Amino acid sequence: MEVIFLGTGAGVPAKERNVTSIALQLLEERASVWLFDCGEATQHQILHTSIRPRRIDKIFITHLHGDHIFGLSGLLGSRSFQGGETPVTVYGPSGIKDYLTISLKTSSTRLKYDLHIHEIDEGLIYEDEQFHVTAGKLEHGITSYGYRIVEKDLPGALLVDELKARGIPPGPIYQQIKKGLTIELENGDIIDGKQFIGPSQKGRIITVLGDTRSNEKSVELGKNADLLIHEATFGGAEEELAYNYFHSTSYEAAEIAKKANVKALMLTHISSRYQGSSSEVLVNEAREIFDNTYMAHDFLSYPIPKLSRGMKG
Amino acid sequence: MEVIFLGTGAGVPAKERNVTSIALQLLEERASVWLFDCGEATQHQILHTSIRPRRIDKIFITHLHGDHIFGLSGLLGSRSFQGGETPVTVYGPSGIKDYLTISLKTSSTRLKYDLHIHEIDEGLIYEDEQFHVTAGKLEHGITSYGYRIVEKDLPGALLVDELKARGIPPGPIYQQIKKGLTIELENGDIIDGKQFIGPSQKGRIITVLGDTRSNEKSVELGKNADLLIHEATFGGAEEELAYNYFHSTSYEAAEIAKKANVKALMLTHISSRYQGSSSEVLVNEAREIFDNTYMAHDFLSYPIPKLSRGMKG
Repeated sequence: MEVIFLGTGAGVPAKERNVTSIALQLLEERASVWLFDCGEATQHQILHTSIRPRRIDKIFITHLHGDHIFGLSGLLGSRSFQGGETPVTVYGPSGIKDYLTISLKTSSTRLKYDLHIHEIDEGLIYEDEQFHVTAGKLEHGITSYGYRIVEKDLPGALLVDELKARGIPPGPIYQQIKKGLTIELENGDIIDGKQFIGPSQKGRIITVLGDTRSNEKSVELGKNADLLIHEATFGGAEEELAYNYFHSTSYEAAEIAKKANVKALMLTHISSRYQGSSSEVLVNEAREIFDNTYMAHDFLSYPIPKLSRGMKG
Repeated sequence: MEVIFLGTGAGVPAKERNVTSIALQLLEERASVWLFDCGEATQHQILHTSIRPRRIDKIFITHLHGDHIFGLSGLLGSRSFQGGETPVTVYGPSGIKDYLTISLKTSSTRLKYDLHIHEIDEGLIYEDEQFHVTAGKLEHGITSYGYRIVEKDLPGALLVDELKARGIPPGPIYQQIKKGLTIELENGDIIDGKQFIGPSQKGRIITVLGDTRSNEKSVELGKNADLLIHEATFGGAEEELAYNYFHSTSYEAAEIAKKANVKALMLTHISSRYQGSSSEVLVNEAREIFDNTYMAHDFLSYPIPKLSRGMKG
């Protein structure tokens, strides 16, 4: 599990930062890539990474401003042109369906795969055996969602070596032990299956917020996340500007991270007024409030390691 | 007058060639820039040139395939964000108006300038004192236009030094002489105004064709042009492929240039199968038929010099 920042600027593209897109690579977990937002030239940015467009099977749109969606039609078309044949699902606010439909129709783009478009509301928007994703509404003048991606806990592995040491050879009984059942062996011994299961692996939590003013929903979406990706369009001194334009400052992002008790905070969607090293000011400001803060840059890769945090048995 | 190639590839963006856009800089002529097609990331390409988006006041779309239009909404939005306040007119096939309208509406893009969208048909689509532009339908499966941009001839300059040498001092009479009238001077001499007017300056002709199979309309649109910009998606050997996909080969582009008696041919819209120096094969093929052929590359600038070709008097 690895987050790759494809575009980390606000509003308009600049040489240093493209408009917004974030990839969540789930190669080990499910050989797929999930995209969050798709500003213009996201597919161009991808050309400079190891991401394969055909692996992208879910695209979550936070809100419909142009710097978050104008790369969508092109990416979907190129994915087809380059041989992508597996389905793609796009999740986003009401309006995304009409927009995509007319874009693809006007341009005579014929996709060689099924495209599903889900116009979402708050709450659970996706769930399978590995993950569930919930959405919550932020404050941005137009509908803007934050997404909380929760990996389900993985059960611990069967401790085969310990079973063998105990003289229990592999066989159908291993399935029962793995379920944690209490079992009577052929020799009459009774064992507790839970004793032969390693520590469970706690699922990870990633929270990706769309553009927003500082608000309480962000805290809820970010609760205990391994990584919170929060916009910081403006520096700490620009609170009024941020409020008026429905954006956040570095300080406000850090306050959310602290309240939500996240493990790490990544600042993104940085205004082009903060060029080069001047953007480091924002991360330093945020660290006054929340120490484990990082600054996103285009092509930054942020791996989120597996942590065994479960209890044995 | 200078043509700047912003994207010269076919279908999908690649590191080497972006999707189509061509700028016609008319800085000396009228301090403006005209754009032909606007594939995704055209505004990103512009960041690496001296072109100022606010100078762009006309955008001509050849056809509605995504690789020719998906950069339009973003460019228009950024032009506004960056302070552009003068009107823009977009010319293109039927469908462009709905596409742009819903793109701008969905994304809540509010332009600070007037946007005019003209869905065109064949024939004269624009005329003022300096230029006229005509459009003609090509062969591309969907409606695809070629544009012929004709600069009107400039009248010759008044030969002030010769007038002075003849003892005719500056005054209102110069206006009459400039009109080429026959005039009686105060001393009774009669002069022919035409004798005191320098050579007229022949207007230049640029022809920009959209994607197309080889066809006769291209010859008409390109007739005697100073520069013909013609697609060469495929090499000379791929005639059948080009025909089936409604595109042209290097040889076919050169045949059109020859028949149209143009001064120079520029090949563009090159398939990504021709990477690096392998694209030079296409230009060499074309030169077997039409010698003055060039290969477009992203950021290539091609100045079209003024030529005094008029007759004196």
